[in-house]
Amino acid sequence: MTDTNTRTGTGQPPTEDPSELDRTDPEAEIAARAEAYRNWGRWGDDDRLGTLNFIDDAKRAEAAALVRDGRAVSLSQSFDMNGPQKGWRRRTNPVHTMLDTGTDAERGNQGFPHGLGGADDVIAMPLQCSTQWDGLGHIFDHGRAWNGRRAGDVVTSDGDLVTGIEHAAGVIVSRGVLLDLGRHLNPETGELPDGYAITPAELRSCIEAQGASSSVGRGDIVVIRTGHLARARRDGWGDYAGGAAPGLSLTTAGWLHDTEIAAIATDTWGFEVRPNEFDVPAFQPLHQVAIPNIGLTIGELWDLEELAEACAELGRYEFLLTAAPLRITGAVGSPVNPIAVL
Amino acid sequence: MTDTNTRTGTGQPPTEDPSELDRTDPEAEIAARAEAYRNWGRWGDDDRLGTLNFIDDAKRAEAAALVRDGRAVSLSQSFDMNGPQKGWRRRTNPVHTMLDTGTDAERGNQGFPHGLGGADDVIAMPLQCSTQWDGLGHIFDHGRAWNGRRAGDVVTSDGDLVTGIEHAAGVIVSRGVLLDLGRHLNPETGELPDGYAITPAELRSCIEAQGASSSVGRGDIVVIRTGHLARARRDGWGDYAGGAAPGLSLTTAGWLHDTEIAAIATDTWGFEVRPNEFDVPAFQPLHQVAIPNIGLTIGELWDLEELAEACAELGRYEFLLTAAPLRITGAVGSPVNPIAVL
Amino acid sequence: MTDTNTRTGTGQPPTEDPSELDRTDPEAEIAARAEAYRNWGRWGDDDRLGTLNFIDDAKRAEAAALVRDGRAVSLSQSFDMNGPQKGWRRRTNPVHTMLDTGTDAERGNQGFPHGLGGADDVIAMPLQCSTQWDGLGHIFDHGRAWNGRRAGDVVTSDGDLVTGIEHAAGVIVSRGVLLDLGRHLNPETGELPDGYAITPAELRSCIEAQGASSSVGRGDIVVIRTGHLARARRDGWGDYAGGAAPGLSLTTAGWLHDTEIAAIATDTWGFEVRPNEFDVPAFQPLHQVAIPNIGLTIGELWDLEELAEACAELGRYEFLLTAAPLRITGAVGSPVNPIAVL
Amino acid sequence: MTDTNTRTGTGQPPTEDPSELDRTDPEAEIAARAEAYRNWGRWGDDDRLGTLNFIDDAKRAEAAALVRDGRAVSLSQSFDMNGPQKGWRRRTNPVHTMLDTGTDAERGNQGFPHGLGGADDVIAMPLQCSTQWDGLGHIFDHGRAWNGRRAGDVVTSDGDLVTGIEHAAGVIVSRGVLLDLGRHLNPETGELPDGYAITPAELRSCIEAQGASSSVGRGDIVVIRTGHLARARRDGWGDYAGGAAPGLSLTTAGWLHDTEIAAIATDTWGFEVRPNEFDVPAFQPLHQVAIPNIGLTIGELWDLEELAEACAELGRYEFLLTAAPLRITGAVGSPVNPIAVL
Repeated sequence: MTDTNTRTGTGQPPTEDPSELDRTDPEAEIAARAEAYRNWGRWGDDDRLGTLNFIDDAKRAEAAALVRDGRAVSLSQSFDMNGPQKGWRRRTNPVHTMLDTGTDAERGNQGFPHGLGGADDVIAMPLQCSTQWDGLGHIFDHGRAWNGRRAGDVVTSDGDLVTGIEHAAGVIVSRGVLLDLGRHLNPETGELPDGYAITPAELRSCIEAQGASSSVGRGDIVVIRTGHLARARRDGWGDYAGGAAPGLSLTTAGWLHDTEIAAIATDTWGFEVRPNEFDVPAFQPLHQVAIPNIGLTIGELWDLEELAEACAELGRYEFLLTAAPLRITGAVGSPVNPIAVL
Repeated sequence: MTDTNTRTGTGQPPTEDPSELDRTDPEAEIAARAEAYRNWGRWGDDDRLGTLNFIDDAKRAEAAALVRDGRAVSLSQSFDMNGPQKGWRRRTNPVHTMLDTGTDAERGNQGFPHGLGGADDVIAMPLQCSTQWDGLGHIFDHGRAWNGRRAGDVVTSDGDLVTGIEHAAGVIVSRGVLLDLGRHLNPETGELPDGYAITPAELRSCIEAQGASSSVGRGDIVVIRTGHLARARRDGWGDYAGGAAPGLSLTTAGWLHDTEIAAIATDTWGFEVRPNEFDVPAFQPLHQVAIPNIGLTIGELWDLEELAEACAELGRYEFLLTAAPLRITGAVGSPVNPIAVL
Repeated sequence: MTDTNTRTGTGQPPTEDPSELDRTDPEAEIAARAEAYRNWGRWGDDDRLGTLNFIDDAKRAEAAALVRDGRAVSLSQSFDMNGPQKGWRRRTNPVHTMLDTGTDAERGNQGFPHGLGGADDVIAMPLQCSTQWDGLGHIFDHGRAWNGRRAGDVVTSDGDLVTGIEHAAGVIVSRGVLLDLGRHLNPETGELPDGYAITPAELRSCIEAQGASSSVGRGDIVVIRTGHLARARRDGWGDYAGGAAPGLSLTTAGWLHDTEIAAIATDTWGFEVRPNEFDVPAFQPLHQVAIPNIGLTIGELWDLEELAEACAELGRYEFLLTAAPLRITGAVGSPVNPIAVL
Repeated sequence: MTDTNTRTGTGQPPTEDPSELDRTDPEAEIAARAEAYRNWGRWGDDDRLGTLNFIDDAKRAEAAALVRDGRAVSLSQSFDMNGPQKGWRRRTNPVHTMLDTGTDAERGNQGFPHGLGGADDVIAMPLQCSTQWDGLGHIFDHGRAWNGRRAGDVVTSDGDLVTGIEHAAGVIVSRGVLLDLGRHLNPETGELPDGYAITPAELRSCIEAQGASSSVGRGDIVVIRTGHLARARRDGWGDYAGGAAPGLSLTTAGWLHDTEIAAIATDTWGFEVRPNEFDVPAFQPLHQVAIPNIGLTIGELWDLEELAEACAELGRYEFLLTAAPLRITGAVGSPVNPIAVL
């Protein structure tokens, strides 16, 4: 698509050093990585799973074998009106209403026999409103979806006709690895500041510092803690949904690709660093490389606080992770309640 | 509440034989079992979990150790407009709409820089529309909710203020056991007919027939296959949601209580046999005993077809089951994608 | 677009006789009428209103002057779960839920001071689920929207960016005229059978039979009663939403154009006759002519029963009609409660 | 209910002077007015309309006769995500999504024959989110709804079973009168400040100043302009929804009752002055008198800017007002697009 990135022209991989990014040319920096790390065709023309293919039965058995204490931790934030959404692109917080209540049941106005009473409820919510997976149909690169398909052939008003999240319904159980960048880089506060771009070198040094249980490889699901959620809980949501945030640098694209991880998730709204690393208008460039090109499933708005406490306490950063999306036909994302078992 | 059931009066447990039920007196039959099997106070006055308390870390570790092949099976039906709901008590099928599409992205009208395109979506659905858990606030007995609380103190228009499903968010990982009553009782078709009331004796004989891996005890999550879903898939939904169905007899209440299972789920809309086992107006009497009195979490609309095939093939009926509800604050139920790992 | 319709080729207007339609060639029959009756550019390149432009202040003053008795009649069907929708293209019936109830208020659990209690509610509904207007962005002809714009420039996932129903918010007050085709053609039953195609000649004979108060001209809003709703009320909804129905023949396109009416509405789901008048696959051909080409605003699912009774009784078929859509930004349709004042 | 208000005890009507209110005793001040102005039983035990009963056919004919120029003005604010709602009591702005788009139609992926394309849409919204009517089931006084019914007999989780807004579907067409308090009290800015409590004396002086066309009497619908919306449009929504605002003083309760108006509406979120006129916790005391006791239908969030310009220009403050709620079964409120014709 472009030859302006000389590293690509010279056959060298794109830089892993954020200071070497051409901050005036997001098109070129994205294109270089899209080209270098594109997995199109790797799992056949009909593929609907991308890097989730790295998870196989053996991997799942290995993950289950990691369980020692049996302690389960939910990595989900709440789904309610007190969430961070502020309406950007019509993303609201979930609206949960009751079809029947205990107040009615107790008053006896429900019309059921023999003293039975019931309560039922309804929810209306964007699928990306709280703890969620981005499906492969969530992001496009120049009109192309995962595996090189035309975006308009994949996601219409009828939803994702090809790579809908339902195809991942029975897949996402694997070894999880927590990389607590917040604690690693800022041991005192455990939190990274807004705009902090995590580099590949820092990911590697975090793994090294955390020790052997943090090794990252094929089929793993990596969860990155920045501490942003802890900060938002303390200080108020502010612009947690959509504003400045710590997150992955665009330069981690190679690491995301080469480690052959199955999926990745963070405790931020948007996974990658915000503001993005350009001096000209840019928006989520790492998404543009990772989802349609690498085929990577990305989790956002995860709550890693309790897990981070547990891992630090146990000195163990690997666990069985079950994070099955709802089987919503044609969805480009899904709420999820990821469960780590240590 | 009542002394009309002589078995209770004589200190004998309620009958386990459906033919001995007084089919003219659901009030008495329910009350006898409510009284006999009530767990109120068992886990303290503040309890929010009921029988989910039977799952502890040791149980979860034991469950993880069951994994051999690493094969994962989703037990979830689809969430889409092709579901079984027909509007009873405002229960509709899920309505999934797009906030942004690939067609728009490809046409380039989304306003993003550097060729980025995106798709987002929204869902509106009853929390009991497809594969789901009934929370402890879902059913009341004479105006009383789980643990003896007044229904109107628990579930108002603001949702379940006490036992909302969010309290179970990090809990439901345990040993799962499939009891394939469909195959056990009807080896030829693998399906039970509508109105078939499964008895405690049949549950026991199924366990015995399936073998040691089917033993049921404290903290287990039992999944009962009746074959109803298989039939509905073949013949059309018809009245799958709310009509006649095979299911548990009211007389299984003692078994549900005494086995100390943590939760139970079926491949039917309503868990218990329909029509209910009375000649006078009755509605879901076993729910009335199980949820507010036993404190049992009940799953409905589960898809057990692939799991049943796998278990039959492997001759193994136990597995690691992760079935975490969405962390919806104050919900009396939740969609769930239960994952069995064999 | 086509020359296959010889009447067009010869400079003759398309036929008004349904028996002369080429039932094998909907493309040509539609194209002939689209070409003959297209109003593109008539009200300028920026027009957002189409034939609603025929309503001016003088017309509204004239309409108000028609009021004699002051009797008001709502022409709206109900908005609730008992409606006719069955899920076609995700059109459900409205789901209305409560955010607060009187039961809660009476029990005193709402937290308000000095004995105040409140009830609030929420609705989720397709904008075309019950009595409604089709906006100008509702239908396209070969990728073209009203006034010749490209459909994708007009209606994206963000809604109708050009001709959204909000532009008609303050416009639709005019003289209404009831044409009771049901009574006119079937005085005994007052109802037309499914598949009955109303012709221009029948519209004219109805006007003549009903008398002077039924004259139809510039800026009028015509409401056509077929009796279909009366039948559905009596016999059950059946396929009222989307199935066979009486309605306007494609051959009325010229009448719709030449009378210079501002809008038209019927007591059926789809305004035009169903099945459509072709022996090959066809769907709502008159919509394809009327909305994007003529620029006509169409009402559907109106309840004309009480109005028809009143008009027959009074011998007067004209009235003040106020039918303002909700001011929903970017909507391609809107629920409406049309009010006739006689 | 109380005798603490001596004016009631002495048979004197409650004060019309806000400075005489006992600011420490909202209970007593509300009770005095509830008792003095209660219309329970006035229109029979079965009444569902309250003061809307003041509108009869003659009144509507009189209203239609007011039309001179035929100029129509919509008094509705927009329904979209840019509205004032911030989530208080789960009141969100409307979420409008597309089921089908022009982008899809133009690309030809909708599956319709002969070049037909379509767009459809869906909305999810609180019924009180933008320009709306409060129905008679919206507010309760000490557990009592309009006409003295028990709140829990009227509004359950199933909606308003007695006084649902559908009963008013064909009623609300009458003479409208604009009282532009903003311009009257602050000719320079045309706006009242937050916390400004409009008194009965000011209502009367406004009527006198505006002249004969502003007389207020039986069956009229009064629309009160404070200028708050103009201010919010200029300065941003801020706390427009739920915060401080100009509005009617509790002391206007007698005026609301004695004038025998059918309904009243304002350009503010909450109709009455905010903060309310008490030094102890209080919330919408005038609602508590007006809706359940007087039986008054109240409109909020109306846009009176264009109307006020027109009235000032014409020197005429009366008009035909059609403000029919949607026929939503069991709703305690409804969005509305009120149309004034001058």
